[in-house]
Amino acid sequence: MTTPAPTSRKTVEQHASDVAALLDEVTDTGVERVPIDEAAARVTAVAVPSPVDLPLFRNSQMDGFAVRAADLTGDETRLRVVGEIAARPIDPAPLEPGTSVRIMTGAVVPPGADVVVPVEESEVETDQDGVETVLLGPARGGGERAVGLFVRERGSDVRAGEELLPAGVRLASRHLAVLAAAGITTVEVRRRVRVAIVTTGAELVEPGETPTLGQTFDSNGTALTAAVVAAGAEVAARARVVDDADVLLALLDDLHGEVDLILTSGGISMGEHEVVRDVLGPLGGWIGSVAMQPGGPQALGAYRGVPIIAFPGNPVSTQLSFEVFVAPVLRRVAGLPQASRVPAELAVAVRSVPGKRQFLRGRRRGDGRVEPVAGPGSHLVAGLAASDVLIVIPEDTLELDAGDAVEAWTL
Amino acid sequence: MTTPAPTSRKTVEQHASDVAALLDEVTDTGVERVPIDEAAARVTAVAVPSPVDLPLFRNSQMDGFAVRAADLTGDETRLRVVGEIAARPIDPAPLEPGTSVRIMTGAVVPPGADVVVPVEESEVETDQDGVETVLLGPARGGGERAVGLFVRERGSDVRAGEELLPAGVRLASRHLAVLAAAGITTVEVRRRVRVAIVTTGAELVEPGETPTLGQTFDSNGTALTAAVVAAGAEVAARARVVDDADVLLALLDDLHGEVDLILTSGGISMGEHEVVRDVLGPLGGWIGSVAMQPGGPQALGAYRGVPIIAFPGNPVSTQLSFEVFVAPVLRRVAGLPQASRVPAELAVAVRSVPGKRQFLRGRRRGDGRVEPVAGPGSHLVAGLAASDVLIVIPEDTLELDAGDAVEAWTL
Repeated sequence: MTTPAPTSRKTVEQHASDVAALLDEVTDTGVERVPIDEAAARVTAVAVPSPVDLPLFRNSQMDGFAVRAADLTGDETRLRVVGEIAARPIDPAPLEPGTSVRIMTGAVVPPGADVVVPVEESEVETDQDGVETVLLGPARGGGERAVGLFVRERGSDVRAGEELLPAGVRLASRHLAVLAAAGITTVEVRRRVRVAIVTTGAELVEPGETPTLGQTFDSNGTALTAAVVAAGAEVAARARVVDDADVLLALLDDLHGEVDLILTSGGISMGEHEVVRDVLGPLGGWIGSVAMQPGGPQALGAYRGVPIIAFPGNPVSTQLSFEVFVAPVLRRVAGLPQASRVPAELAVAVRSVPGKRQFLRGRRRGDGRVEPVAGPGSHLVAGLAASDVLIVIPEDTLELDAGDAVEAWTL
Repeated sequence: MTTPAPTSRKTVEQHASDVAALLDEVTDTGVERVPIDEAAARVTAVAVPSPVDLPLFRNSQMDGFAVRAADLTGDETRLRVVGEIAARPIDPAPLEPGTSVRIMTGAVVPPGADVVVPVEESEVETDQDGVETVLLGPARGGGERAVGLFVRERGSDVRAGEELLPAGVRLASRHLAVLAAAGITTVEVRRRVRVAIVTTGAELVEPGETPTLGQTFDSNGTALTAAVVAAGAEVAARARVVDDADVLLALLDDLHGEVDLILTSGGISMGEHEVVRDVLGPLGGWIGSVAMQPGGPQALGAYRGVPIIAFPGNPVSTQLSFEVFVAPVLRRVAGLPQASRVPAELAVAVRSVPGKRQFLRGRRRGDGRVEPVAGPGSHLVAGLAASDVLIVIPEDTLELDAGDAVEAWTL
């Protein structure tokens, strides 16, 4: 066995900082224009000004009667009803003094009219000659009806040229609604980070194949794909490489220009067949160890400017490494909230290992306390699936009692 | 103007309860089988048992040497190295007493071997005859190396037939990972609720068209589409109906069998041209008023067994009505967390209206207090877009001071 070069060791914070620095360029992914109906959860790249006044025109806030405020006298006013304006395309004639017009919510208020009286405050009469009048009673709230009552002025929500949305907004339904309301059909958003996922290992077979002794189903491709999407990025390529450095190098060539970031699993520890290590080393990458468990072996580098973050191959290590080092960066770019990392109380005593930050797979109980649900082995994928929190035990802590405070990361 | 029948009035809770009861059947949408790589955020319909033991076979947790515990004596043991087992398909011969075999992480532990000694605790020598031996030093943690140390037993994570995932789990990356690890390629999930979105109004034009005076861009189709998807359902149909009851009835016929739920906006208030009211009334639906602002007019009914929830047409009313009445039900079906509804402190004094629960569009300030960001008008789509909370003012409260407690719904 060739003895590998002594690996350098880093703290979790050092490696997280190195990953963030390497990904710094990735966060500026440029801009693309997408239809608003495909823009949910995307992030505006620039501020969006309104091309129009909103409302587009002066309209009624109520079903009722449009009148001139000057015609309203005392508690009751009787006015002739000269027509009706529905909420539809129309260019109404000016309202003559001493008259009123029926009006629907959202309909154009005719020139001259400056108050809408709600239908609930009115009573219509038709005389023997067929002349229709309306008796307008007192305003429900009491007092005078001020000019503008129940009239929505053009531009009173937003004026043409004013900002509808700032840059950096993660588009939810209410944001898309205001774009539609202003007649906007497409919006400039940040391009999603395009990620390639490369799993390595001669022992891996795809789920659905039939493994022989020594073979294991590859779960890292599935796990990283779902995790990348959940962090707001997109999976632009996915591949599995057996332990052959030339194949991996050729793949990196293919990925250049197609993706912003390459994530790998496996091939970076101290064994002989470590394809990612064999490729990253000559590229000037860092291959070493981070003081954490699971997930000790870690590496990073770049190929022709494309950052490569390399995780260990054990499934729990891969998933946890993504959550610790890469997910926070991707979530920030995507405008997503970070995972909750809050203090919690241990339900049971736990032991840890010296010099390593331990991430125990755990569960939050009914009483709010947290407890481990599986052993520390980095192959325990079912244990991780059964967890809903990670319980973080600091590097210098070897034993904790029930009731002690820990940090809990919600999964 | 025909005087509409006096509408019945409900509290917010009464209508919410009626909507939930009407949607009760919708929540049982049946089951579909989807590939695991398309199953993220879906909810398992049944418990998933493991078809295999995990790990699939007895394997090494370390790069190192597989040995027999019985051969280890004292602080140092020298053993002959008889071969190497990599992590790849292999059916290794039993390990003879007094020998060791190099082994990689994840590789098959040969029959007979019951301990793995990490490479860091070993030193290899080759004598002049080319015979290789390894000197195994003391265990790093001190003490004896127990049988099973650094050996992952077959089935130690989960045994064939045991539950991998329970029913009702919203599938995140760690859940999909354990399915993949067990070789599972598809999973039975609850079918998403299929929603039809029907906006009504003769005044509406699509964004991108050129409105004439009296016309307004339809924002409700866009808003409800994004909101339905965000609540974990899918938009199976989307239509806009001008104010014609026959057209709407024909559409309901088309939608029958295609969707689980129909949402409409507009056409339920007291005006003359109220297409949804005209259709729901003869169908025995409820059309009335809910003690809230915005969103007073509300309606519900069913057509050939398909529930119809009808919102008022003002954009803010539509969006808010969805959030108050329908989103909680859809989120529950989809296994999504409910929106946060927490106590907050007012930054400024506010006034409200008697007898109606008011939902003010607001913003959470740097100091954690909340303040309104726009007026109460239900047409203020830009105001809603600029909000990040809804400030809830109870029905019986007319005035609140700065510092008073309110409920704040995070948007």
